[in-house]
Amino acid sequence: MSTDVLAGPVPATDHVTVAVSTVIFALRPHPTTGVSTLWLPLVRRIREPYEGQWALPGGPLESDEDLVTSARRTLERTTGLDPRHLEQLYSFGAVDRSRAGDEQQCRDRVVSIVYWALVRAEEAERAVNGQNVRWFVADEVPELAFDHNAIVRYALARLRSKITYSPIAHAFLDDEFTLAQLRAVHEGVLLRPLDPANFRRQVLASSSVEPTGQFLTGTSHRPPALYRSLSRPTHQPEEQA
Amino acid sequence: MSTDVLAGPVPATDHVTVAVSTVIFALRPHPTTGVSTLWLPLVRRIREPYEGQWALPGGPLESDEDLVTSARRTLERTTGLDPRHLEQLYSFGAVDRSRAGDEQQCRDRVVSIVYWALVRAEEAERAVNGQNVRWFVADEVPELAFDHNAIVRYALARLRSKITYSPIAHAFLDDEFTLAQLRAVHEGVLLRPLDPANFRRQVLASSSVEPTGQFLTGTSHRPPALYRSLSRPTHQPEEQA
Repeated sequence: MSTDVLAGPVPATDHVTVAVSTVIFALRPHPTTGVSTLWLPLVRRIREPYEGQWALPGGPLESDEDLVTSARRTLERTTGLDPRHLEQLYSFGAVDRSRAGDEQQCRDRVVSIVYWALVRAEEAERAVNGQNVRWFVADEVPELAFDHNAIVRYALARLRSKITYSPIAHAFLDDEFTLAQLRAVHEGVLLRPLDPANFRRQVLASSSVEPTGQFLTGTSHRPPALYRSLSRPTHQPEEQA
Repeated sequence: MSTDVLAGPVPATDHVTVAVSTVIFALRPHPTTGVSTLWLPLVRRIREPYEGQWALPGGPLESDEDLVTSARRTLERTTGLDPRHLEQLYSFGAVDRSRAGDEQQCRDRVVSIVYWALVRAEEAERAVNGQNVRWFVADEVPELAFDHNAIVRYALARLRSKITYSPIAHAFLDDEFTLAQLRAVHEGVLLRPLDPANFRRQVLASSSVEPTGQFLTGTSHRPPALYRSLSRPTHQPEEQA
């Protein structure tokens, strides 16, 4: 076996399987309040363990595909989505994370490498939504298979943290957007109102956007200016995609 | 097999092995310039593939240990280090990343889950340093086994980015430190001088430190104030440790 080991006997790792899963976020109106909020798609498991329960889209890593290729493949297959922003989130490998109640039924161990993706509302509307794939309000998901509730909680915390210091909010918007639209994204993610003047000042100071010279048409008598993103792609290691 | 799969046949993943490796940084004087700079320990491989080449400390994930437990175990075994700051960095899984020149010799595929650690200079001095474990200037490592050069580059970029928005620099220091010592850490990591007055203003505005009420003794007639860290642990998912 080829391993990164320095010395010593090679322990038995035959029962560790690698899976790649993805947490996909989109902003859509809350079903009761109508307020813009985060949603994510889940898939229903059609086999044991956790048969019938909802889980993150994903699947085992195939031996001839890279991690991000695996994430894109299972996303496309289960939801029809091809997100613009796709980023590695974290790898989850607690020893008992894939064991259901019945130990005999499921002895093997799974390490899940989890990606997170951001998609625009129009994309989310076009995505698959059926008996075995359904969108949920991200803060109100049911009890999920494996440790997927913990993964969703971590992805939400990461998104809410990262939006405060990185221009990832742009991934929820079209190529051109108003500062009010950008603020609505931040408010939907953070679940709280933001002061318009402060928000405008901070965004313009961050040099993450530039005016396009165009204005939003069909609105008020003082149409708002349109901006475009100046942000570079998220800093990530080079991955074969 | 228990996998996070929605449907479809389970592909053959038997040849994917999971390894856990760690990039450990310490600040020590550069051997020629004497300027404080980042170093890291590497271990010499004593078996194929890449026998004789330097590599990051690490090893295969054992089936009964969590990811962070694996990182701590191989760190302790190879370097004797038990770092205060240990954080998951990224998982590397390009298809051909573990294949040496001789395909026959090494057909299996390895996904490496990489952690990064920060240790204080005194700890680094007490660490193992021998024929098969040696410290290198982080920006001047030789050609490493596997894709470990790319991993080191990414870890350096991540550290240099994160130090600008997070109080991780404290991990390089004792529990009490002066603002000049904290600035020296930032300068050693970023490889450039920082304006003392600006640095002081930014650190105090960040609320990441508080004065201890004590002063550094044995120095000038105006001894500098000592501070302690107010930072919470890095935001990470709950891991069994």
